[in-house]
Amino acid sequence: MPKYIYKKKTKNWLFFQNKQEDLIPQSHIAHYDLNTLHSTEDAALNKEQVLILTPMQTFHIEYWNNLLQLSYPRELIEIGFIIPRNKNGDETLKNLEREIKKIQTDKKESRFKKITILRQEQESDSFNALGEKDRHSLEVQKERRSKMALSRNQLLFSTIGPYTSWVLWMDADIVETPTSLIQDMTFHNKPVVSANVFQRYFNEDEKKDAIRPYDFNNWAESSLGLQLASKMGEDEIIVEGYAELATYRLLMAHSYKATDSPSETMELDGVGGGCTLVKAEVHRDGAMFPTFPFYHLIETEGFAKMAKRLGYAVYGLPNYLVYHIEE
Amino acid sequence: MPKYIYKKKTKNWLFFQNKQEDLIPQSHIAHYDLNTLHSTEDAALNKEQVLILTPMQTFHIEYWNNLLQLSYPRELIEIGFIIPRNKNGDETLKNLEREIKKIQTDKKESRFKKITILRQEQESDSFNALGEKDRHSLEVQKERRSKMALSRNQLLFSTIGPYTSWVLWMDADIVETPTSLIQDMTFHNKPVVSANVFQRYFNEDEKKDAIRPYDFNNWAESSLGLQLASKMGEDEIIVEGYAELATYRLLMAHSYKATDSPSETMELDGVGGGCTLVKAEVHRDGAMFPTFPFYHLIETEGFAKMAKRLGYAVYGLPNYLVYHIEE
Repeated sequence: MPKYIYKKKTKNWLFFQNKQEDLIPQSHIAHYDLNTLHSTEDAALNKEQVLILTPMQTFHIEYWNNLLQLSYPRELIEIGFIIPRNKNGDETLKNLEREIKKIQTDKKESRFKKITILRQEQESDSFNALGEKDRHSLEVQKERRSKMALSRNQLLFSTIGPYTSWVLWMDADIVETPTSLIQDMTFHNKPVVSANVFQRYFNEDEKKDAIRPYDFNNWAESSLGLQLASKMGEDEIIVEGYAELATYRLLMAHSYKATDSPSETMELDGVGGGCTLVKAEVHRDGAMFPTFPFYHLIETEGFAKMAKRLGYAVYGLPNYLVYHIEE
Repeated sequence: MPKYIYKKKTKNWLFFQNKQEDLIPQSHIAHYDLNTLHSTEDAALNKEQVLILTPMQTFHIEYWNNLLQLSYPRELIEIGFIIPRNKNGDETLKNLEREIKKIQTDKKESRFKKITILRQEQESDSFNALGEKDRHSLEVQKERRSKMALSRNQLLFSTIGPYTSWVLWMDADIVETPTSLIQDMTFHNKPVVSANVFQRYFNEDEKKDAIRPYDFNNWAESSLGLQLASKMGEDEIIVEGYAELATYRLLMAHSYKATDSPSETMELDGVGGGCTLVKAEVHRDGAMFPTFPFYHLIETEGFAKMAKRLGYAVYGLPNYLVYHIEE
């Protein structure tokens, strides 16, 4: 079989120069039948391929270790990262590559099917180009989420294949999930399903470890939210979690009940990107992350709206918790 | 290098069973730097990869022969087809595969870099599930174009890679273009640029061969068009080329001047998919083909609006003609 070499885009990178060669038959013809590509509740049994996508501004070893403890078969997992083009990104890349190298050069059974690292084109695209203290103000948040949406699209369009059954969006600051995360979430067999992102912390008043809700982007629409939107200018957006903009939406973050079943579902209208599983066909039909106001929503919340416009239902798992890193 | 075999999705297909094996290193890590991925006016010189995408309901040998006469280097061209799941599609697939086989098993210099054939999931997705006579009524057109948008998205998401510089949308009924089509169109170095689709016919009155405009989806917005849109219900759409819905938009189809330069450009707000070149970054940033009304536009016209919302400009080449098959 003749040897095929991808155009080397990355000659200044630190590692793996010799890993870029693919052996592809030169008379390459690929056939894919979307009719035989499934995403089912028995994903692992049916050998369905899962693409885990993570926009990464900072490498947390806890994120990586959590990924490594997932029990879904690694030969069915591809992972894609997108990293901002700035100094912080250089450091992130170095740390990420070091850990990837350990796994992908380890014994065959330990390796993921494929790992793709994408570096952003411009520093101005960086989804973390904001100071930490600015990150949660409303105006700054709009710009940040628009850039995050751009990054998600670049990552998605570059990595999804005609053989991908599921896409798992997992943020780089998610550091703790059940081992059976992918099996658990695929089992619900929903077009879009989002886990509830909480955070562990030390409760100073009660002097003990505790948990608190973290991601407020998973919500069900309220009539007040719709009313608010109807009065807005074309380019205004609603972002959840700001006192300036009370929406009275039902937030999944506040719907957690410790005593109820973790497999309980609720219908949602907006989702976050913390830990959200999407059937690949939803993306393939056209659902992306709007960088511009789409029904007054952007990024993952706009994506949920787009999935619904494409005819898909969106769900959340209020009692299925995953954890954001302590800051 | 260990041997890697894609999961065979297509065991009932007619040909090429033995062509599906890819040799990929098992410790596969791919690095792509979007900063070094360019789309420039010197595309061929800079070895920029072009992805030609064609939704194909009927195989016309004239389309294929036209593709083969393009002078852009074939080692830089990937082609993707999506074919409906119906009887017509079976025939199309057979004819297409026969011709592809000739080229991709021919001598190395004749081969395209890669050809991907995608078969749609369901018969109901078929973008040609309508009788020929219905194809041009307004109501039917809406549904047809929504399905066409779906097909374009499925094809795009399945074939675009992190190494793709340009995407050329070429309809299956385009049978005549200049040999230098890709060089000519990339030379304009625009985010989106559309050729003017005409049709050859025999003028019975004048008893001679003649040409006439064919694709009316390339247009610049008018104040009346905007006014029309502002009065429409959320899910109504404007489709160009129907007497029921006069928009007074400036149509590129009517802007052709035989005596003017073929390299002349005009700014557009809507495009058709007949022969439209897109910088891959426009798609990668999120521009897809809305299957639902997006600013009262769908499919390629909605795509143009989305590209503009993402900050890209859209152009047409009024005097650069390509030809639709005679029906």
